[in-house]
Amino acid sequence: MTTSEKIVFTRGVPPPEAFPTEDLGACLDAVVREDASVVLQYGQQRGYAPLREELAAEYRVSPAEILIGNGSLQLQDLVSSYLIHPGAAVYTEQPSYDRAIKTFRRRGANTVGIPLEEDGISIERLEAALEREVPAFLYLVPDFQNPAGSTLSLEKRRRVVELAGEYAFKVIEDIPYRKLRYEGEDLPMLREIDPTNVVTMSSFSKLLSPGIRVGFMISPEDLIGEVTALGEDTYLSPVLPTQAAVAEYLRRGLLAPNVERLKELYTPRWKAMAGAVRRELPGAQAFIPSGGFFVSVMLPEDANTQDLVSRASEVGLALTPGAAFFAAPDDGVATEGDRFVRLPFCAVTPDQIEEGARRLAGIL
Amino acid sequence: MTTSEKIVFTRGVPPPEAFPTEDLGACLDAVVREDASVVLQYGQQRGYAPLREELAAEYRVSPAEILIGNGSLQLQDLVSSYLIHPGAAVYTEQPSYDRAIKTFRRRGANTVGIPLEEDGISIERLEAALEREVPAFLYLVPDFQNPAGSTLSLEKRRRVVELAGEYAFKVIEDIPYRKLRYEGEDLPMLREIDPTNVVTMSSFSKLLSPGIRVGFMISPEDLIGEVTALGEDTYLSPVLPTQAAVAEYLRRGLLAPNVERLKELYTPRWKAMAGAVRRELPGAQAFIPSGGFFVSVMLPEDANTQDLVSRASEVGLALTPGAAFFAAPDDGVATEGDRFVRLPFCAVTPDQIEEGARRLAGIL
Repeated sequence: MTTSEKIVFTRGVPPPEAFPTEDLGACLDAVVREDASVVLQYGQQRGYAPLREELAAEYRVSPAEILIGNGSLQLQDLVSSYLIHPGAAVYTEQPSYDRAIKTFRRRGANTVGIPLEEDGISIERLEAALEREVPAFLYLVPDFQNPAGSTLSLEKRRRVVELAGEYAFKVIEDIPYRKLRYEGEDLPMLREIDPTNVVTMSSFSKLLSPGIRVGFMISPEDLIGEVTALGEDTYLSPVLPTQAAVAEYLRRGLLAPNVERLKELYTPRWKAMAGAVRRELPGAQAFIPSGGFFVSVMLPEDANTQDLVSRASEVGLALTPGAAFFAAPDDGVATEGDRFVRLPFCAVTPDQIEEGARRLAGIL
Repeated sequence: MTTSEKIVFTRGVPPPEAFPTEDLGACLDAVVREDASVVLQYGQQRGYAPLREELAAEYRVSPAEILIGNGSLQLQDLVSSYLIHPGAAVYTEQPSYDRAIKTFRRRGANTVGIPLEEDGISIERLEAALEREVPAFLYLVPDFQNPAGSTLSLEKRRRVVELAGEYAFKVIEDIPYRKLRYEGEDLPMLREIDPTNVVTMSSFSKLLSPGIRVGFMISPEDLIGEVTALGEDTYLSPVLPTQAAVAEYLRRGLLAPNVERLKELYTPRWKAMAGAVRRELPGAQAFIPSGGFFVSVMLPEDANTQDLVSRASEVGLALTPGAAFFAAPDDGVATEGDRFVRLPFCAVTPDQIEEGARRLAGIL
């Protein structure tokens, strides 16, 4: 590694070596030849039926509770358009997924961030916010959160679901990283505790390929029906060959071994980032996850964060501006977005991770 | 053919025998293997670059003037969201594509239909409407219109483009059927007369497959930039393997022979529908196109059109309710939607066409 090499700590994208290229190519070819009259035609507005059946079996719901679209962001946009009436509140973790915050705002929501703690959203602050206003929905990334890396504890999962019933609001649990756990045991999904008010969203972007854009949602059937109708009005039918290829990939039993392969690929990177952050940024508050794509840090109050992204760029380090992950504060106090740094580790090698952390430490 | 067989004169979808199944499967397989790091990744927000280059060469524009999305309806929705401010007028032909009318309305437009004549939109009525209000845009299907089948004359094409410059409004020309001409010579696209105010939209749904959802728009670069940003906010990246497969299909020189094959498949159906309508519905005003998917008729004023769709269903004939194709009238006079019948001929055989026309005549 030369010091002139640019190191990219920005978007959470899988590296090219993560893609099961040969198998996906073969599955695409097979489904187009074998089911052309469905796969190449208009229709299947709720998503390719055999893939809905696979997902229904996995999540123990009926196929009528599943909608598959062109990536989960597209579905989030449609759900937002249906659930958000202009001026309504949407609550997110603070920080949260930047594109989700942007989507909720574009659809007219007053998007408010509830502080995130190491074990997930602050229940105390959520309860206080609910006393003031019941939101259209609460948006959470409970497992290996984007951008912070934290995971919602079992106790807090139970309480969130309880509050949703008590105050009558929906909870969107967005779980694209859930299967990429590098240590420890799965916690139940919110829907496993009580599905009544829960909308689950996920995708195959982190497990197979983002370019195929196969994302899905699971929710009570009436909401699926409404969002499907909006989807049909918006894009007529989903792109079917890629959905069918995923169904074929699952049918061939290839997903579980691929997830194991990804864990083997990502585990050394995860360990490298955790170690580098502890060693190079000892004064920062670090979130070290048990899976997913992101470590994050809240830099010390006395760190030099002025123009951090442009100064990082000068030393060959690409960072995402922290403020993009912050919605409006729940307590009116200005956010500390400038001190927040997301550190995606999956698309960088251990060597790049070490060098990148050193460069970051050097400019603080 | 038995009289109990149901005959479907509803949606304008290609029949399964129209799909070049083997070639599309092979192209999908090839591009995923050969360009995995692009095709399976996030990115290419304006569409797969090699396909944009192919289209740029064909339409003699720069790749920066092209955006490829998940079907052209999705792009129409995004363009509408950008161009339509709540309460603005959008003008369409009357009748027009039902999903387009619905999209413009959902995005807040007052959608007004300008009467369609055999040679396209009434210029006189368009001029009168422009005197009252300049719309956000005028939406036209100039070639083998959906739903009526008419084609905009050269003289009217010139006048529409002139009016767009004079009154400063955009014209969306939607041309998915343009290459399926069964007789006569092509007229110039509106953009060939003057591209300044023209947005061209088209797709590969009618030439290759609807299920791949590859649609595109051509417009001045600033509008492409705005719509691309909205697309990225909405669906992050387009579905790439299907776009790449289309690029490969074009690169292999397969499109032109496939279009010839489709014309051979559709020409007998087109002739059968034209003949059947003239023979079975002599009192109706028929639009017989020179290409595309649709013949249409305006039934005589004394025809029995009450509950036409349900009475047709009782004799085993599926029809689309005509009123869906009608926007608000430009002159405040109620539309004659009940008398309008769209007759798609591509997905039915000549025998089915004869029998269907007989059944329709029998219930009037």
